[in-house]
Amino acid sequence: MQTLSFAKGHATHNDFVILVDREAMTPLSADTVRWLCDRRGGIGADGVLRAVRSELIPEWQGKPDLWFMDYRNADGSIAEMCGNGLRLFVRYLLDQGLVDAEPVEIATRAGLRKAWACLDGRIKVSMGRVRVAEQPTWIESNGRRYDATTVDVGNPHAGVRLDDVEQLRALDLSVAPTFDQAVYPAGVNVEFVVPVAENALQMRVFERGVGETQSCGTGVVASAAAQLHSLGRQTGSLTVTVPGGALKVDVDDDQAYLTGPAVVVAQGRVTLPKQ
Amino acid sequence: MQTLSFAKGHATHNDFVILVDREAMTPLSADTVRWLCDRRGGIGADGVLRAVRSELIPEWQGKPDLWFMDYRNADGSIAEMCGNGLRLFVRYLLDQGLVDAEPVEIATRAGLRKAWACLDGRIKVSMGRVRVAEQPTWIESNGRRYDATTVDVGNPHAGVRLDDVEQLRALDLSVAPTFDQAVYPAGVNVEFVVPVAENALQMRVFERGVGETQSCGTGVVASAAAQLHSLGRQTGSLTVTVPGGALKVDVDDDQAYLTGPAVVVAQGRVTLPKQ
Repeated sequence: MQTLSFAKGHATHNDFVILVDREAMTPLSADTVRWLCDRRGGIGADGVLRAVRSELIPEWQGKPDLWFMDYRNADGSIAEMCGNGLRLFVRYLLDQGLVDAEPVEIATRAGLRKAWACLDGRIKVSMGRVRVAEQPTWIESNGRRYDATTVDVGNPHAGVRLDDVEQLRALDLSVAPTFDQAVYPAGVNVEFVVPVAENALQMRVFERGVGETQSCGTGVVASAAAQLHSLGRQTGSLTVTVPGGALKVDVDDDQAYLTGPAVVVAQGRVTLPKQ
Repeated sequence: MQTLSFAKGHATHNDFVILVDREAMTPLSADTVRWLCDRRGGIGADGVLRAVRSELIPEWQGKPDLWFMDYRNADGSIAEMCGNGLRLFVRYLLDQGLVDAEPVEIATRAGLRKAWACLDGRIKVSMGRVRVAEQPTWIESNGRRYDATTVDVGNPHAGVRLDDVEQLRALDLSVAPTFDQAVYPAGVNVEFVVPVAENALQMRVFERGVGETQSCGTGVVASAAAQLHSLGRQTGSLTVTVPGGALKVDVDDDQAYLTGPAVVVAQGRVTLPKQ
């Protein structure tokens, strides 16, 4: 029976199993990922974060001596990047003394990301360039059609602004919102937001192919950028509160940054089932 | 920060966090149990099994040198017994070399239980006396009223027999079945079963206060006893297949026994949050 060292933790209740495989000796099959993420039969998580030396990743063309974040969704599929996952990944590497210099540079399928540890334990990560589309579109949810703003954070987002928190709370997101297939041929993540203060939003999110989640890093960044855009601003800072916790977004001329909690909860060894 | 050694495993996809606290040095608060069972913020499980030396449990009057299974539900409440939890508890104690003689005797809030390891890795546990009531009652589900049989396995069960597997599959158990409050003043666990062979049942269960679950040890025993009763038999053996796996029930003149898989998946250390 094969056993692996693992850690489990979460970032605003987006939770992950972390595996360190420095020399890429333990490739992960989709079956193994699904089993690890199985909340009753395995350990349970939204995804797996595998840490591999970057030079051993054929598609990585950058610095050879970084940690590459090999991120997998719970369904076994490969994903490019995850802002919550990246914060937990960096928290774990820092806790284990596997990185030291700041900013911590992490190789991901979406390119190089940088991270900083805050004194209060939160982790700040770079999220790349954000593009807010000028052309409005629509989202339909619970039988009502809303105006929506398209935001590209590497993946597609549609942001809907609601009038008040009561309306946000009342939304039934067990049903998938619908959208213009011509605008989002590959589907879209949908965020519903309410401005609750000058620089603060409350948000709920329906993730493409998943459903409502406690938190979505790129969705938080998209919502903040759309809000700034609606105020005629290109840059600025906002706090976004999601069901899983509170996150801060900073947008500068170059790109966006996401700051928030990340906690390693458990570490140990897991026994994989016979294949 | 407090860290504890833990294990996680499951028995027919009923999953548990196991803590060994031989000298009763780490009493568990309801908050800690809820946190450990939180599937995103903590480790995630249906319940916690804490192993304590029996002489340190004030309410235990039996042998002083046994392991006491201090079982808690995910909501932090104390529970008497759990057939699936008991199998996993014994599997873990055997794996760790913490028990050896067979039968393994375990102290529980429902009294002494005995367990045996099968060569194929399954664990057989004694489940105590089962009483099938002669007086029929009813259960209503999905707008239809069914005849039901009351079975007492230490906790109350109502068994409904359906005609075929298609009918069982089609049941919507996201809605709680209703029942005669006079018969079950403290609520009831409801099992829907279909006989699929001479000594085999398929079953789905709606657990009191929980909802539909993958498996329920006492529900499986209750269903087997009700089926034997309907055939005019007091004793016998049946296989019961639940969504989480297959279990065998043996009923003799004295009591019932439950046999099925139990797997320890992971072991490690968990860091409790600051209270």
